[in-house]
Amino acid sequence: MIEENQETEFIIPHDSLVFIPLGGVTEIGQNFFLYGYKGKWLIVDCGLGFPGDHFPGVEVLLPDPTFIAQHKKDIVGLFITHGHEDHIGAIPYLWQDLQCPIYATPFTAELIEDKLNEFNLVGRAQLEVIEQGALLELPPFEIEFIPVNHSIPEPNMLAIRTKEGTIIHTGDWKFDSSPVIGEKINIDTLKELGRNGVLALVCDSTNIFSEKEEKTEQDVRSSLIEIFKSAPSRIIITCFASNVGRIESIYQAAHETGKQVCLMGRSFWRIDSAARAAGYMKNIPPFLTEEEAENIPKNKIVYICTGSQGEPYSALSKIASQNTNELFMLGESDTVIFSSRVIPGNELAIAALQKRLLMSGCTIITDREKLVHVSGHPSQDSMKKLYEYLKPQIAIPVHGEPMYIIEHKKLAEKWGAKNAIIVEEGDVLELNDGDPEIIGEVPVGCLAVDGKKIVSLGADVIKKRRKMIEGGSVVGTVVVNQKGDLLGEPQISSFGLLDTDPSDLETLIQLIKKNISDMDNSLKEDDATLKETIRLTIRRFITEQFGKKPLIEIHLVRI
Amino acid sequence: MIEENQETEFIIPHDSLVFIPLGGVTEIGQNFFLYGYKGKWLIVDCGLGFPGDHFPGVEVLLPDPTFIAQHKKDIVGLFITHGHEDHIGAIPYLWQDLQCPIYATPFTAELIEDKLNEFNLVGRAQLEVIEQGALLELPPFEIEFIPVNHSIPEPNMLAIRTKEGTIIHTGDWKFDSSPVIGEKINIDTLKELGRNGVLALVCDSTNIFSEKEEKTEQDVRSSLIEIFKSAPSRIIITCFASNVGRIESIYQAAHETGKQVCLMGRSFWRIDSAARAAGYMKNIPPFLTEEEAENIPKNKIVYICTGSQGEPYSALSKIASQNTNELFMLGESDTVIFSSRVIPGNELAIAALQKRLLMSGCTIITDREKLVHVSGHPSQDSMKKLYEYLKPQIAIPVHGEPMYIIEHKKLAEKWGAKNAIIVEEGDVLELNDGDPEIIGEVPVGCLAVDGKKIVSLGADVIKKRRKMIEGGSVVGTVVVNQKGDLLGEPQISSFGLLDTDPSDLETLIQLIKKNISDMDNSLKEDDATLKETIRLTIRRFITEQFGKKPLIEIHLVRI
Repeated sequence: MIEENQETEFIIPHDSLVFIPLGGVTEIGQNFFLYGYKGKWLIVDCGLGFPGDHFPGVEVLLPDPTFIAQHKKDIVGLFITHGHEDHIGAIPYLWQDLQCPIYATPFTAELIEDKLNEFNLVGRAQLEVIEQGALLELPPFEIEFIPVNHSIPEPNMLAIRTKEGTIIHTGDWKFDSSPVIGEKINIDTLKELGRNGVLALVCDSTNIFSEKEEKTEQDVRSSLIEIFKSAPSRIIITCFASNVGRIESIYQAAHETGKQVCLMGRSFWRIDSAARAAGYMKNIPPFLTEEEAENIPKNKIVYICTGSQGEPYSALSKIASQNTNELFMLGESDTVIFSSRVIPGNELAIAALQKRLLMSGCTIITDREKLVHVSGHPSQDSMKKLYEYLKPQIAIPVHGEPMYIIEHKKLAEKWGAKNAIIVEEGDVLELNDGDPEIIGEVPVGCLAVDGKKIVSLGADVIKKRRKMIEGGSVVGTVVVNQKGDLLGEPQISSFGLLDTDPSDLETLIQLIKKNISDMDNSLKEDDATLKETIRLTIRRFITEQFGKKPLIEIHLVRI
Repeated sequence: MIEENQETEFIIPHDSLVFIPLGGVTEIGQNFFLYGYKGKWLIVDCGLGFPGDHFPGVEVLLPDPTFIAQHKKDIVGLFITHGHEDHIGAIPYLWQDLQCPIYATPFTAELIEDKLNEFNLVGRAQLEVIEQGALLELPPFEIEFIPVNHSIPEPNMLAIRTKEGTIIHTGDWKFDSSPVIGEKINIDTLKELGRNGVLALVCDSTNIFSEKEEKTEQDVRSSLIEIFKSAPSRIIITCFASNVGRIESIYQAAHETGKQVCLMGRSFWRIDSAARAAGYMKNIPPFLTEEEAENIPKNKIVYICTGSQGEPYSALSKIASQNTNELFMLGESDTVIFSSRVIPGNELAIAALQKRLLMSGCTIITDREKLVHVSGHPSQDSMKKLYEYLKPQIAIPVHGEPMYIIEHKKLAEKWGAKNAIIVEEGDVLELNDGDPEIIGEVPVGCLAVDGKKIVSLGADVIKKRRKMIEGGSVVGTVVVNQKGDLLGEPQISSFGLLDTDPSDLETLIQLIKKNISDMDNSLKEDDATLKETIRLTIRRFITEQFGKKPLIEIHLVRI
């Protein structure tokens, strides 16, 4: 996917401290941020994006590493803020193009190692496990990992120090006054950073439209205890697999109400083993497997399931389809809890899953009815505090649709940032002297993982695929002799035309035969003319009969 | 689409008063409700559904009229509550199957006539224009149109009176304390209905999760005036075309701030003419066309545009693509207002449109930042009042995902309904004696308008189309003689495999040739065996190379 000889036209001045986002600014996902200084590069995060229905048939999106791959010898390292897929998921796909050490805290490193394993990269990719709070000297950068709170263990804010000043890159974060995993954010650390001077703050915009601070994970835990107490029979609860704090909350709520906990779905088992390997969930006995849970009375069991976003192959989706073992048949006395938010784009899939679940008569509880979820991102209140502590000269909003980025910029100015600046993917932002300026652009783009291939996501490819979905596709086969006389019957295949009646196809074949025999003899000898005649016959017929414009290909075989 | 000889197995008892929803209960859209009594049928509404990305390539969904089409001679009429697409949009498609008079108030009738016109049904379909508040005697039913408030002119609640009792069918409604079009709901009328006894209330659940009453359209108008006052240059505002009250509010806000108004998009011109034909917008001078607006100074013009849901061919989408005339180039001083809600499923399309708009530097205002929209549906507060006034014995929640229906049922019980009952599409609900019982089921389904065809939406068809999107499709053509020896080169076409490298195809063709020549002579003489060999060759190759499982068809021509 990378053209080796492609040179970047834009040359970064040696003494410029630059920030170049290659993904993760004006969208959620594909986090991939570059910091460049004195010919060296530091990368923060390397994440996936999820295309939703926007890119038909594509499961996963990657940021395009073309620009930084040209500088791979000068990369001091890839620094991972935390273990969510939109921050680590692209590592195994893009590592070949980076070939630099990866720095991550223990839990995050466990998740990364799983991925490297899958891609046979263990031993080749250098994974450096560092402690939370670690300080690394990688000239011309000094990088400090500052623990924050978020919806996964070991989230970190990075302080990136250079001779030009200190940049704070928040990653995903929030203030949690009583975190169930990890510690509260150390306010003194933040204040000290502020006193020493912060050149730029690169900060999460995900929740910028929430004004007030939300409830905490402890509040969710208390609420779950009440719900578990009054549930008449089985409890089935779905949440994001990486939310180890939530898993602990569910365990505690189950424990306090005399219930045991079973995990369903591969992602939960993977997180369970990564979390335990990194020293979390020490006081929680092993979770039950589905088989082990079979013998537990129905009012004594809680199932934690994948499927909070309506994913078709998740445990919850299988339960909704009654596609598990017979003992599991969902019933009227069961309670299903969605302990998660709706990720934009998944509304219909989730509603469809809930509809299928409700056919059993079960009770569904979401965050609309009860406190069963809190966000891992900061509201305006929290962000204002962060700005007060850090007093950044420059504010660079990231993580959010443009509406969010613009709102964050406005508020950052209100909160005292001298310069709040909006950058887009590919912009080269010079930060020297606290006077930010976009001094150029580098190639930027989006790659799609499509089956086993990684392909560049040009607009054309997507347009063609959309056209195929809307208009269908038709292939016509015609065999002729050198003079252009038909040998055998023409054959037609069509895809994506909902209602293809065999008699329609027969009519079309007769039409093709007639139009070929009506052609002048000299024209029939020319492949291009013959093909075009057949193509037009098919196209007119489909448009008249179906009101559609399909993609058409002709297999003309001349013998 | 209807099998003429298909008989309903279930016979409805002659003296039963039954309610049979064929659409519009557990989903938004496709409203199509039957009331049956003494061998006669009354239909309420006949609307479209929008499939979103859930049914790839399908633009519009229809309820399946199979059951009622068998009784078309006994239909007393189709009664339309109001003119929204999800209440009238299926009329032209299904009228053939109903062939009954259509009753609608003047504005709604204008919209219906437009549709009949498009389908050459004017003069054939009998459209009866009735006044709001009209009372119709169509034994064994008496039907009264009771004006309510909603986000379109002339919304009506129906009182359907029979010897067994009175049913109130709300349609879409809300209480508006100061409606800009039409009158406030007459509370005395509702109370009197209650005093005379309401057997059943069939009621809108759309906003059941909103507790408090929202602001009114008058409040939106005041808010728009403030926004218009401070806008530095052009104002571009998008809303639902049928929301004539909103169009009036925009006009008034423009008028009070010294601006003129231009309409952009076909739907707005259609509504404009329907509204004026029915006597609305009398005091509003004709809106400007795009050409007329060109000469107006930028700070004196407001454009009302289609596109609030991110529709790709809407006026707003064209503006975002700078795909209008050159004078229109969107710029930093322009203000774009989304005066509408996000319909679930459209989140990503709207976000993508806003992203494109923001590239011009314009300011976007949505209902997140300012009061620019109010809902046309009732909150819990309003519904509670309606239940208090009507005191229905039976409550039948409709219009909403199952979560909404279930919540409505719970609240209806709290609000005093003796029996709150959940029905699904196709259920036959007997209402006699205030003792509701589901006594049977009739055929029910969903039809898709796919280009020019109307097709039944079986799970298989959709499954196949999804498979094609995910796995792509391949057609291979092979010409052989009677012995099975190849004549000419095999040909391959593939669709939806993102990255089809010509050298991959060449490898595949060589593989097919080799595998055919490796076959035993006797096997090559059998078409089925030869085809299967080719199919498997293609399938294995695509799975290995692309990691995909495409739909495969083989054109084998034997000469």
